[in-house]
Amino acid sequence: MTTLSQQVSDLVPQLQSWRRDLHQFAESGWLEFRTATLVAEELHQLGYQLQLGREVIDAEARMGLPDASVLAAQEARALAQGALPQWIGHFSGGFCGVVATLNTGRPGPVMGFRVDMDALDLNESLAADHLPVREGFTSINSGMMHACGHDGHTSIGLGLARVLMANQAKLSGTIKLIFQPAEEGVRGAKAMVAAGVLDDVDLFTAIHLGTGVPAGEIVCGSDSFLATTKLDIHFTGVGAHAGAKPEEGRNALLAAAQATLGLHGLTQHSGGVARMNVGVLQAGTGRNVVPDTALLKVETRGANNEINDAVYQQALRVIEGAAVMYGVEYDIKLMGAARSCKPSQAWVEFIHQQAEKLNIFSSVVDTKSAAAGSEDATYMLERVQQRGGQASYVIFGCDLAAGHHNAKFDFDEQIMAVAVETLATLALHQAEFKVPA
Amino acid sequence: MTTLSQQVSDLVPQLQSWRRDLHQFAESGWLEFRTATLVAEELHQLGYQLQLGREVIDAEARMGLPDASVLAAQEARALAQGALPQWIGHFSGGFCGVVATLNTGRPGPVMGFRVDMDALDLNESLAADHLPVREGFTSINSGMMHACGHDGHTSIGLGLARVLMANQAKLSGTIKLIFQPAEEGVRGAKAMVAAGVLDDVDLFTAIHLGTGVPAGEIVCGSDSFLATTKLDIHFTGVGAHAGAKPEEGRNALLAAAQATLGLHGLTQHSGGVARMNVGVLQAGTGRNVVPDTALLKVETRGANNEINDAVYQQALRVIEGAAVMYGVEYDIKLMGAARSCKPSQAWVEFIHQQAEKLNIFSSVVDTKSAAAGSEDATYMLERVQQRGGQASYVIFGCDLAAGHHNAKFDFDEQIMAVAVETLATLALHQAEFKVPA
Amino acid sequence: MTTLSQQVSDLVPQLQSWRRDLHQFAESGWLEFRTATLVAEELHQLGYQLQLGREVIDAEARMGLPDASVLAAQEARALAQGALPQWIGHFSGGFCGVVATLNTGRPGPVMGFRVDMDALDLNESLAADHLPVREGFTSINSGMMHACGHDGHTSIGLGLARVLMANQAKLSGTIKLIFQPAEEGVRGAKAMVAAGVLDDVDLFTAIHLGTGVPAGEIVCGSDSFLATTKLDIHFTGVGAHAGAKPEEGRNALLAAAQATLGLHGLTQHSGGVARMNVGVLQAGTGRNVVPDTALLKVETRGANNEINDAVYQQALRVIEGAAVMYGVEYDIKLMGAARSCKPSQAWVEFIHQQAEKLNIFSSVVDTKSAAAGSEDATYMLERVQQRGGQASYVIFGCDLAAGHHNAKFDFDEQIMAVAVETLATLALHQAEFKVPA
Amino acid sequence: MTTLSQQVSDLVPQLQSWRRDLHQFAESGWLEFRTATLVAEELHQLGYQLQLGREVIDAEARMGLPDASVLAAQEARALAQGALPQWIGHFSGGFCGVVATLNTGRPGPVMGFRVDMDALDLNESLAADHLPVREGFTSINSGMMHACGHDGHTSIGLGLARVLMANQAKLSGTIKLIFQPAEEGVRGAKAMVAAGVLDDVDLFTAIHLGTGVPAGEIVCGSDSFLATTKLDIHFTGVGAHAGAKPEEGRNALLAAAQATLGLHGLTQHSGGVARMNVGVLQAGTGRNVVPDTALLKVETRGANNEINDAVYQQALRVIEGAAVMYGVEYDIKLMGAARSCKPSQAWVEFIHQQAEKLNIFSSVVDTKSAAAGSEDATYMLERVQQRGGQASYVIFGCDLAAGHHNAKFDFDEQIMAVAVETLATLALHQAEFKVPA
Repeated sequence: MTTLSQQVSDLVPQLQSWRRDLHQFAESGWLEFRTATLVAEELHQLGYQLQLGREVIDAEARMGLPDASVLAAQEARALAQGALPQWIGHFSGGFCGVVATLNTGRPGPVMGFRVDMDALDLNESLAADHLPVREGFTSINSGMMHACGHDGHTSIGLGLARVLMANQAKLSGTIKLIFQPAEEGVRGAKAMVAAGVLDDVDLFTAIHLGTGVPAGEIVCGSDSFLATTKLDIHFTGVGAHAGAKPEEGRNALLAAAQATLGLHGLTQHSGGVARMNVGVLQAGTGRNVVPDTALLKVETRGANNEINDAVYQQALRVIEGAAVMYGVEYDIKLMGAARSCKPSQAWVEFIHQQAEKLNIFSSVVDTKSAAAGSEDATYMLERVQQRGGQASYVIFGCDLAAGHHNAKFDFDEQIMAVAVETLATLALHQAEFKVPA
Repeated sequence: MTTLSQQVSDLVPQLQSWRRDLHQFAESGWLEFRTATLVAEELHQLGYQLQLGREVIDAEARMGLPDASVLAAQEARALAQGALPQWIGHFSGGFCGVVATLNTGRPGPVMGFRVDMDALDLNESLAADHLPVREGFTSINSGMMHACGHDGHTSIGLGLARVLMANQAKLSGTIKLIFQPAEEGVRGAKAMVAAGVLDDVDLFTAIHLGTGVPAGEIVCGSDSFLATTKLDIHFTGVGAHAGAKPEEGRNALLAAAQATLGLHGLTQHSGGVARMNVGVLQAGTGRNVVPDTALLKVETRGANNEINDAVYQQALRVIEGAAVMYGVEYDIKLMGAARSCKPSQAWVEFIHQQAEKLNIFSSVVDTKSAAAGSEDATYMLERVQQRGGQASYVIFGCDLAAGHHNAKFDFDEQIMAVAVETLATLALHQAEFKVPA
Repeated sequence: MTTLSQQVSDLVPQLQSWRRDLHQFAESGWLEFRTATLVAEELHQLGYQLQLGREVIDAEARMGLPDASVLAAQEARALAQGALPQWIGHFSGGFCGVVATLNTGRPGPVMGFRVDMDALDLNESLAADHLPVREGFTSINSGMMHACGHDGHTSIGLGLARVLMANQAKLSGTIKLIFQPAEEGVRGAKAMVAAGVLDDVDLFTAIHLGTGVPAGEIVCGSDSFLATTKLDIHFTGVGAHAGAKPEEGRNALLAAAQATLGLHGLTQHSGGVARMNVGVLQAGTGRNVVPDTALLKVETRGANNEINDAVYQQALRVIEGAAVMYGVEYDIKLMGAARSCKPSQAWVEFIHQQAEKLNIFSSVVDTKSAAAGSEDATYMLERVQQRGGQASYVIFGCDLAAGHHNAKFDFDEQIMAVAVETLATLALHQAEFKVPA
Repeated sequence: MTTLSQQVSDLVPQLQSWRRDLHQFAESGWLEFRTATLVAEELHQLGYQLQLGREVIDAEARMGLPDASVLAAQEARALAQGALPQWIGHFSGGFCGVVATLNTGRPGPVMGFRVDMDALDLNESLAADHLPVREGFTSINSGMMHACGHDGHTSIGLGLARVLMANQAKLSGTIKLIFQPAEEGVRGAKAMVAAGVLDDVDLFTAIHLGTGVPAGEIVCGSDSFLATTKLDIHFTGVGAHAGAKPEEGRNALLAAAQATLGLHGLTQHSGGVARMNVGVLQAGTGRNVVPDTALLKVETRGANNEINDAVYQQALRVIEGAAVMYGVEYDIKLMGAARSCKPSQAWVEFIHQQAEKLNIFSSVVDTKSAAAGSEDATYMLERVQQRGGQASYVIFGCDLAAGHHNAKFDFDEQIMAVAVETLATLALHQAEFKVPA
């Protein structure tokens, strides 16, 4: 293992360099045009076989896609910022996914590793004590910031690609590196699953850094993700002069208000956590007009898929009923979704053993009770497990300058090497893993 | 006219006697068993041709009918209080309507006069200063009281019957005296219309005493009644233990609460007054059970039929929507209804002229802006007018001891003779009326 | 009167020229910087004594004022579009009111005429059949359009100023021409009243063109304006992650939804029309965040001041209660207000007589039942009447290309001359008016 | 232990006899007049020192007390059914608590055992397959039924009293037997705690039979009770005629509806289960009257006291806000309350050991995840633990004919002997218990 450790150590400057470049040119979900071309080029140069864009992203299964005009403008922006023209055609129109495959030619399972590439819709802090400010790599893209560490994830993915290719001779089976767009808002994973990307994966590992796990600790099988559904509801009524002809209106705002109150009463479930949030309500055009439009941005969550689905089904009923009450039309758009998650016990145990043997963690745990969040890699775990594969979600604890999704978020870059070494170890020792009967 | 005036004067003790007997044996809507038998007997004795019960009440069109058990118990109560067994069979089951016809054999129009017979669901005051207490004729029926003067109306109808029969030789055409049940809650008139009672009436007059009109004044064509619809809505959900299995319930109480808020937002209409009241909400069985039942008692009103209908239609939508929101069933029962009212101008003018000539009123007016109430004789006016007839609603002002529907309501009994004289005059002078082209 | 008629006739090209210039440089409420400087210059040149800006606008009484940054930017825009630098200092900061006085030196009452100057927040139609397109004078200011005819009103005011000065010798008493900003949203009149502009006016006339009154008709005492109050309500709660820490939030959106449902239940009043509209609701920042802000744009209306005030007082209670329910703060900003209106009977009759004598109207009426709108000149009528003066609101019917507030609104420019002639006549014949005892 | 086992065995017929008598004369909460006198007499005859009524029930701390008229009528009913006149004075007015003390004179801790005595407000099934029907001991008190096994609990308490007195010589310290009224609705325990009953108890055990635990199993430290608060909220507004003077009303029903929707949105808490139920809403007097009264029956629950208190505090805010919205008064009455529960680990282990040694259970467990219910013995556990004592809640699994609170509930009477033997064992072996440092 000394060799691997040394290889990873040599990679540290490159990891930092990748990460800071990605951080500076942060790209939000479905808009990772520059990122994806750079990732494709690197993997191509390394000798991986590539699947790109529509090959790995099912168009219909994409959720929360920006408008076509935004997609076009952002593609142009990306090109101006150094996106590689030879690759960008694959990603045009919001298909920024990359899958790189290394078939060793030796028998063995298909191992999948998934990282995500998107930034958040957030303006980065320009405070002097924010490290990216001091070191000069803050995001130059207004309203986009890597405040969740996906710049690190992408770099880890690239680093892993390098190390594995360098150790190709020691590997067996097939390696599949999955670079996913649009994890924020849980929008992208489902489209990769729908494209069949996971259909041949036997051993699957998704990762995250930080998330409140302390530095030095690895969580080998995070299982606390909430299932979730993200919805936009548009009510469309009929406007009318509120003073002169109120009876001619059909009030979309009142439908939205009633729906909101109904929705927030749906969270009692004996099976576990159920959540509902109407996070945004925007309705009406003028003070003296019966409002003819209303938009609700809603999310449901559940401790497991069944609870989330139950809340979601009831939410549909509430929305329909509110529309009926006011005689307005409505349209529901699915904007994102993720599943709850039960990592495969045997695979978690294998990761646990390998992590302990690495001797680079001060603490190796299987699960961690955590603040309730959601993650769409769960769709990938679910797909792999449906087919009989093993899957887990690994978290690498590290120091954070501020919480995730905060404008001053930053992470200790050393974690990238730790992650590369751990994941590479899983691949290099894969032969030791015994699939449970 | 001296003769008529004298005849009416002679009738005063009888009017008082009738009225006090009816007052003492007050009977609420659809339960006027004793009243109806006494009315039938008197009219039969006078020589009128009678139509009774199902002949004048359409069973299906009855609204707000008490339960069968109440009907049976009250019929027994009535018999014990002197209801006449020879007539009661006609009224059994809630058909307490009487129509008496006098066909003079001489050509002429059919004149209809309508009085109502029902008491209110109210306990009469037993205060020493309440005249029925002093004079010993308070209601002996608990929860029933003539607090709106319908005892007077019935007595006026009987007095009119006597006077017209006495003056039969001076009359032409046909006289039709209509004694209606269940005006309170606007429940009974529609069923008489549906039975065809008004289908041959050419000149129609309904009456009320009091209503805030000052003593000495007659309103010849009251036109301020609001159209109204009375609804009972039953939501039926599914109960569940609120602590243990909240998700298994379907909450009828929440549906009712949402519906209520929706209903109370329906009263803006550029066409005029619109009203909504959820007067009663009763829901749930126990503190720790998801409520599986809810009852709403609702009324809509409108300055005219169109407005009331518009509000009513929207209310149906609100109710349906609220049920959809919570996945509960609902049932709507029509409990009462009345129409707005446009008295026929020519007939109002004729009444006005006759009233002035009588010289017994200090003020004769056509209309009176009044507090917004409803009255189901409006169905009768509407039916007569639909067929080309003339119709009006006359109010005889008089002193009241307390407001209508008050436990201390009482009226100056002299008004009964005034009303009899006026209505008889209309009949006796009918030949002077010229139907407008 | 031939002379006056001829004078006005000569003025027609000038009226059109003024109007089209104002139309092209449409300026919304409180932003009439260019308009006000041109009006001031014209009146100054004519020899009127001017009161400007803060002299005629009470700073604190202004409602619905744009932000300081908007005021500054629009002032710069106005200067670039030809606003006169020598006058603009008076209007800087949102004080675009002009009052021009002509004291004849002869005894007599103070006559006030009020016109308004502001455009609407609307993009003008660019359709080929829209006359301002054909004639090349559509608004060059994005989001601002004279779609209510105030460009015509201002031109009428200037034309009246010319004619009266030309006929100065025939006048007695004092003439006061009031050019008001920000009538749209009923924001500006109250501030002119508060500045004392109306405190010496004995005979007051406000005007409007169009409003559905047919061409050829003049309404001498329009009395159907609804009293109104315009409110912005800001609820401020506490955000929180909706999935992870929902209990830490204080939900401003839910407060706004509950308030909305409560507000829409306030419109039943036995005294007459009551109106409520929550025209806009904007709340929340992100789907997965407990919403910490909500904005409601609300208006109340009433058939008279008492009803509007009653609804307004109840609305305050509803808003406070909704804030208490969710533990959120709230702030209410008054954005506009107007009063109901009872024109002075004697002054209406005088206008009626003069209009008939002019022989230029095919129909002269006192009032017109109309769709319910509001108008803040009512504050001026109220102030004049409080002091014992006579006041009315006159409408000049004319053909319209499309309804008021429509992007294709346009009026027949001939009405401007009609209005000037009528108003000038009132001044020239003022001596004939006898103030009632 | 043979001796004890035999003693208990001999007691079986008496246990059944007591239980069936109590079952037949079922008495609901605060109305256990007959039960309490029989309990007092038995304990007195055995030689226990008694504290009765107001000595063990704090008057002010009682919750959900029936009206004085009900209390009086039920006391009379009890006397007619054999309540003992010599004891009833202590319990008169709703103070049906009994505490029996045996001071051995030997040093040692105070051991407390608590049983409850009240029935449910329920009509017992009269179905032929219901054992109390077959055996002829169904409740003769209409609307009262022992459908939760408290008749068994009381009998166990009496049996324990007999056995312990018979083995007095083997005991040390003090034995305190606590017979509590009004556990249903969690109304009575707090008043016994407030009276100081638990203030000297060092080792405390409360019990329940059934609750879904299988026959043969004992749960030594049940910890799944939800903290709960039961509230009645009365809103008082102002009535008005809904058609004629709607603006004069202050609508208590609308306040209740808004409050209900607000309350049902309060159940999201990251700390664990939170529950809310508006189980009953009763409002209004008549269809055409603005409702001036409304009653809400509400309960909150929480996985722990902090969560329940948080929901309760928010609920108070929601209620106050709803009252403010409609300008109505409100009154909140506390109707019941219970705490969450953390049994003392050392005491649970001791019970566990003793139970295993008894060799009468097929399964001995510490806790059991169960459907979420509440229990007010938790106030007693809390009080004992606050003072440094040890406390637990023990469940004796047994076969049930139907679920708790079901009209056909019945339990296998053999469980009573099992419970007596177990509890007596705890007392007889108490000296073996080592209080943790």
